[in-house]
Amino acid sequence: MRRPAIDFYFEFASSYSYPAAMRIAPLAQAAGVTVRWRPFLLGPLFRAQGWETSPFNLYPAKGRYMWRDLERICGRLALPLRRPDPFPQPSLLAARVAHAGFAAGWGDAFCRAVFAAEFGDGLPIGEEVIIVELLRDLGVAPEPALARARSEEIKAALRATTGEAEQAGVFGAPSFVAADGELFWGQDRMAEALAWAVRAATGASHPRA
Amino acid sequence: MRRPAIDFYFEFASSYSYPAAMRIAPLAQAAGVTVRWRPFLLGPLFRAQGWETSPFNLYPAKGRYMWRDLERICGRLALPLRRPDPFPQPSLLAARVAHAGFAAGWGDAFCRAVFAAEFGDGLPIGEEVIIVELLRDLGVAPEPALARARSEEIKAALRATTGEAEQAGVFGAPSFVAADGELFWGQDRMAEALAWAVRAATGASHPRA
Repeated sequence: MRRPAIDFYFEFASSYSYPAAMRIAPLAQAAGVTVRWRPFLLGPLFRAQGWETSPFNLYPAKGRYMWRDLERICGRLALPLRRPDPFPQPSLLAARVAHAGFAAGWGDAFCRAVFAAEFGDGLPIGEEVIIVELLRDLGVAPEPALARARSEEIKAALRATTGEAEQAGVFGAPSFVAADGELFWGQDRMAEALAWAVRAATGASHPRA
Repeated sequence: MRRPAIDFYFEFASSYSYPAAMRIAPLAQAAGVTVRWRPFLLGPLFRAQGWETSPFNLYPAKGRYMWRDLERICGRLALPLRRPDPFPQPSLLAARVAHAGFAAGWGDAFCRAVFAAEFGDGLPIGEEVIIVELLRDLGVAPEPALARARSEEIKAALRATTGEAEQAGVFGAPSFVAADGELFWGQDRMAEALAWAVRAATGASHPRA
């Protein structure tokens, strides 16, 4: 059998992507699933449906609920939570640096570091000085990483990932896509998505079947 | 201690309200929580944020995902699923009849019957002939029930419930509100909401605290 794998689509500006990114590695490991970290940009998808900012800002009741719900979730997971200001944070630079990091082996550690800084410490992750600090903490030389992040190849990789997310039916973050194309939306669907990925790889029937 | 209670806000046109309505009674009973069934209208809340129909129709990717997700959920729960056409169904009459039924003791059974007809059998629950049939199946005389449903008192009760939902921060259905005002959105948060309601009534601390 193939080893089960899952595409983990997330956006650095997305609040619910924070708990997902912080806990997917151990959960996936326990389930025997390989995670493909796929940071993408929600902005183009949101703009395509007429939103100029997060729906949590556009719809205040939904936004108030999200922050309270995130507080409950982080409380249960013992994750610190500090709301970044402004929300959402500009995420383009972090997404490009992450894509630069995957080939170099520090991509997913960088992703966790960004989320911890942004939603754990409330830091402005759109600022280069913050990204530089996070890279240094990971033992990565910042200048070459930033140069690589701004290369045409990495810019194209991020655009391609965003396009692939849209093709897979993704409309929000985080989302999970199993090898058979099955889509799950929301950090609270991670366990369900991992179980689906295992069944998709082993050819076992799905519970709905 | 007070007996734990929860407000169950739902909308007959809402697809995710279907599995919630079909399984809340046994889950709440097992948890020792009294459920207050509170059918309301999402239309006024949606129109207030500029939506003229369901967001599942306005945003096609979200809509496609919802139907697939509902299929998975109903599969797991062994609930039949047949998509009503058109979606969403007009829900005003069903909501008024339900409010008429609560005082008479057949309210929650009627709610389950409406959801089973609408999403299990794909029937047009906006049509009076369907509502009449459902009432008859429950042993309820249709004419007095419909007359009561169209009384000023019941119309006002439905308007008041919709206003109270909005006051409680509700922006989608189903939603659950514990006695201390804590809000949970989504059929997949029902167990969490019931557990919260129990702790709210016993004065135990919440897991986030």
